[in-house]
Amino acid sequence: MSPTDVPTQTRLDHLLGLADDALVAAQRLGEWVAAAPELEEDVALANIALDQLGAARLLLTYAGELEGAGRDEDALAYLRDDREFRNALLVELPNGDFAVTMAKLLFLSAYQLPLYTALSGCADARLAAIAGKTRKEVAYHLDHASLWTVRLGDGTEESHRRMQAAVDEIWPYTHELFTPDPSAPVDPAGLRDAFLASVEPVLATATLDRPADGWAPAGGRTGVHTEHLSYLLAEMQVLHRAHPGARW
Amino acid sequence: MSPTDVPTQTRLDHLLGLADDALVAAQRLGEWVAAAPELEEDVALANIALDQLGAARLLLTYAGELEGAGRDEDALAYLRDDREFRNALLVELPNGDFAVTMAKLLFLSAYQLPLYTALSGCADARLAAIAGKTRKEVAYHLDHASLWTVRLGDGTEESHRRMQAAVDEIWPYTHELFTPDPSAPVDPAGLRDAFLASVEPVLATATLDRPADGWAPAGGRTGVHTEHLSYLLAEMQVLHRAHPGARW
Repeated sequence: MSPTDVPTQTRLDHLLGLADDALVAAQRLGEWVAAAPELEEDVALANIALDQLGAARLLLTYAGELEGAGRDEDALAYLRDDREFRNALLVELPNGDFAVTMAKLLFLSAYQLPLYTALSGCADARLAAIAGKTRKEVAYHLDHASLWTVRLGDGTEESHRRMQAAVDEIWPYTHELFTPDPSAPVDPAGLRDAFLASVEPVLATATLDRPADGWAPAGGRTGVHTEHLSYLLAEMQVLHRAHPGARW
Repeated sequence: MSPTDVPTQTRLDHLLGLADDALVAAQRLGEWVAAAPELEEDVALANIALDQLGAARLLLTYAGELEGAGRDEDALAYLRDDREFRNALLVELPNGDFAVTMAKLLFLSAYQLPLYTALSGCADARLAAIAGKTRKEVAYHLDHASLWTVRLGDGTEESHRRMQAAVDEIWPYTHELFTPDPSAPVDPAGLRDAFLASVEPVLATATLDRPADGWAPAGGRTGVHTEHLSYLLAEMQVLHRAHPGARW
């Protein structure tokens, strides 16, 4: 489907879905900067957060131009309410312990890698260029999360128990990522095989059980979020909103 | 003074002073990652935090080797109590509002720039190499904080009021940075002229009053800290300490 056949509002929703996944994930990862278990991991998580933030900025800027209403990246990041956010629920869930954070990053990056790989060849040249850059970063995120999943899963009894609990807790939220959407530049429904091909061998190497498919909470892509997003946005937006339009 | 003339414990204290300034500053800056007033600033603060964290890691690794007791960067970061930290009080103060954060960064970087410039020529080749790398990063931090100080000080009435209050609040804590110490590889007492030569023109351009010198709280360099450091360390160290020596 050529991008010009799709209504602008639909294209915007798709861009915001990509951007908000990255923006919210970056905020959650940023919460670790003061609390990772190793200094090296502190640096790694901060760099991954910066990658996601960089992708979010490019996508929000593009979305603002497409919308044509004069909203820039900051207006889109700081002045939308939670009902206007299009991120999947997975990224807004609380960090939990370190194992939960790694499960979230594993599943997010195993979804983003085939997504951005496909988008880098899509008909929308601007989006394709952003995707080509982001794809390389996401490949590193997936490697990083995979290594930690194996280290924790195939580690001590306690770390195994926590990693399995994390995978079990987050797995239901992966289904939303693959909700069919034929109007999207890349239909997410077609990405699940690649996701499973990434994730299942990692779980097996980590001696973790692959959870059964069942409960599949959703709503984020249409703006129906958990209360966790409200708190995250409150913290993220408070300073900008306290001085609306301030030229400082 | 040649480094071999100085007792190892004294050299260690000096290295830890440098490392802990950077480590604690990085943690405080990291707290902003989810809350800066602009996405661009989010990215800038995260990058500055990463620079400081990078310097802290190099210095802590060196300190651990010099100590010869088998403590690595993580042991030094996560397993020391607040009385063993050697950072100046300035970096452990709470972030306060954005203006306070910028005042802290302005004063810290205006101290670190001449410090690391001088250290890059010191007799300790390992320290000189770390300083040469760090000096370039700190020059950027100083530029960044100077631009914000001017933007806020010479901005709106409200931003001017806040920036002046921030400068007034933080200024007393700058004196500790220049406490004379002839055994240090670079005596901090000799750096204050360069500090003032950086800071005073910035304050003038920002239409801010340069505070009078008076109250000069100190103690950080000898391990006597404010309660703020205890809370910061509690958050930073909890995960590592929950799994002491864990090979995950």
